Amino acid sequence: VADTSAARGSAASPAVSTFTEQDLIARVQRALPPPPAWLLVGIGDDAAVVEPERNRVEVLSVDALVEGVHFDRAFVPADATGYRALAVNLSDLAAMGAEPRLALLSMAVPGDWLIDQFDGVIAGLTRLAAEYRIHVAGGNLTRSPGPFMIDITVLGTVKRRQALTRAGARPGDDIYVSGTVGTAAAGLGMLRASLLNKKDTTDQNACINRYLYPEPRVRLGLLLSRTRVATAAIDLSDGLADAVYRIADASGVGAMVDAGVLPLDAGARGWFSQRGADPITEAIAGGDDYELLFTARPRSEGRLAAARRHGQVPLTRIGVCTDRSRGVRIRHGETERELPRAGYDHFR
Amino acid sequence: VADTSAARGSAASPAVSTFTEQDLIARVQRALPPPPAWLLVGIGDDAAVVEPERNRVEVLSVDALVEGVHFDRAFVPADATGYRALAVNLSDLAAMGAEPRLALLSMAVPGDWLIDQFDGVIAGLTRLAAEYRIHVAGGNLTRSPGPFMIDITVLGTVKRRQALTRAGARPGDDIYVSGTVGTAAAGLGMLRASLLNKKDTTDQNACINRYLYPEPRVRLGLLLSRTRVATAAIDLSDGLADAVYRIADASGVGAMVDAGVLPLDAGARGWFSQRGADPITEAIAGGDDYELLFTARPRSEGRLAAARRHGQVPLTRIGVCTDRSRGVRIRHGETERELPRAGYDHFR
Repeated sequence: VADTSAARGSAASPAVSTFTEQDLIARVQRALPPPPAWLLVGIGDDAAVVEPERNRVEVLSVDALVEGVHFDRAFVPADATGYRALAVNLSDLAAMGAEPRLALLSMAVPGDWLIDQFDGVIAGLTRLAAEYRIHVAGGNLTRSPGPFMIDITVLGTVKRRQALTRAGARPGDDIYVSGTVGTAAAGLGMLRASLLNKKDTTDQNACINRYLYPEPRVRLGLLLSRTRVATAAIDLSDGLADAVYRIADASGVGAMVDAGVLPLDAGARGWFSQRGADPITEAIAGGDDYELLFTARPRSEGRLAAARRHGQVPLTRIGVCTDRSRGVRIRHGETERELPRAGYDHFR
Repeated sequence: VADTSAARGSAASPAVSTFTEQDLIARVQRALPPPPAWLLVGIGDDAAVVEPERNRVEVLSVDALVEGVHFDRAFVPADATGYRALAVNLSDLAAMGAEPRLALLSMAVPGDWLIDQFDGVIAGLTRLAAEYRIHVAGGNLTRSPGPFMIDITVLGTVKRRQALTRAGARPGDDIYVSGTVGTAAAGLGMLRASLLNKKDTTDQNACINRYLYPEPRVRLGLLLSRTRVATAAIDLSDGLADAVYRIADASGVGAMVDAGVLPLDAGARGWFSQRGADPITEAIAGGDDYELLFTARPRSEGRLAAARRHGQVPLTRIGVCTDRSRGVRIRHGETERELPRAGYDHFR
């Protein structure tokens, strides 16, 4: 459970504008473990130099968190900002079945940020990096005249024929999701409400924790790719409905989702109901869960055993792929309708 | 010479906020050439999948341009913004002696930007990408509630023992710089002055052009690494003085720079003089030239022949590395003093 004091800072903490760029880079370096042997040149030169891993292809992704778009500093502590910025990238690697290797960190920091906040971001990021053994090999640091922005590039590796894409699903494949859906959306709602009520967030629950510190499903992704049980995979960054549509579009299939079996966290369900919202609708549209959605050939239950046993997260079969002509639909008991094309768009 | 109409936009061009993220990604994709065979999965999945190049190490760098910090939209056209964002990254690869391979593009775009400006950024970037055969393999696009930010990650390759670092200079090595120094700083001054005078910048000269469209010295970097003639190298992003100090610090040497031989563009020299400033002082401190500064063993003139012939830019011997204890100094005729530690700091 997060301590929000880092986000609020303290009067004793100086502003980042009183430090030089070199000072700040040195603070990042001190927070990092010793570089691995494959990192031939690390932070401090014009670029990093890396020995590639043999017999692997490389998986590269970049994702940004922008203050005021992806998070609100009023209720997201600094360490959660750093943690989430890396987590969303690790989640992309997980969705490809790749093993994390290195990260490049680019930040634009407002000059009036306190050094405690800066250190908090780095602490959250390096804690998660250590957990998944991903090394920060370089980056860029600049002042921002506007919001704080953190942009992370990750590189992972996977055996050539084991990379998971969104494009391999076929009609008849089962659709699975890991963990629960809508939990982070409920957590975000709770954080916003606590801010309005000027209520402290120290009584944080599982939903808030999921929003602030999502667990990238790296272990599950590796198991799905190594056992070749998943035919397609994607992570839930913009919600379940968005993920199902993207798999369907990329694979050229339709889909039927069973609303009755969607794995909702009890706290999230209660939160949505209490506010007069339909928990299923909210769970389908809500983003930021960073679970994996994947497809598998029917009757793969046996082959899914390893993923279930060692993937560190429950798996739920939530539907099936259909012919493209049938579209993307959801069944509530006896009724059936088109799956609402919900999902967060960063521009509209 | 730049056309600034893209930066100013036109009333007929709609705002980016009227497009979806998918629309905007599609506009980027349409501007790109067909993907190379080594790009196994490109834009449109959770991450890019890349076949590594055999017998090479990889060189990775990230660099950002932030509106209001690194450029002013009032006098930098949209296409120059896209061009420069990639150029500064290619310059980092050049300084390592690496061959450009792929780029990841992350942008945070204000919703009120016109789609013409967005397209202009992409056009400037893809033009330079095509010139250096670097492929945009993926990226991220988000709305910005503040300034425009463009963050590019590049990956290049080099033979293991040929990567150029800042750390190989030894006392007695000669110090060389490519092209001219202070030219971009003069160009920036001219652009600012033309704005104050409400003067159109269509009478742009070589200095303005150098500021807006710096040429990354990729070809020179490759020649310096392949012939192993350079003992250390760095690019001039934050000025000549900064570059000399960084080579000296990383290599553990001192340096003596000869002010009399510094290669100044005649237009830049005239501009600085006209404003009552000392051209040498300005040229030493001015950033954004993106030339290469490198060191070579004494009497390497013969081995430098290939770089001189095919590097597409003149080289000037501007000084020599000394013992660390002698510090970093500059000689003006008979007088000698410590090299002023000038250089742009993004925070102070």
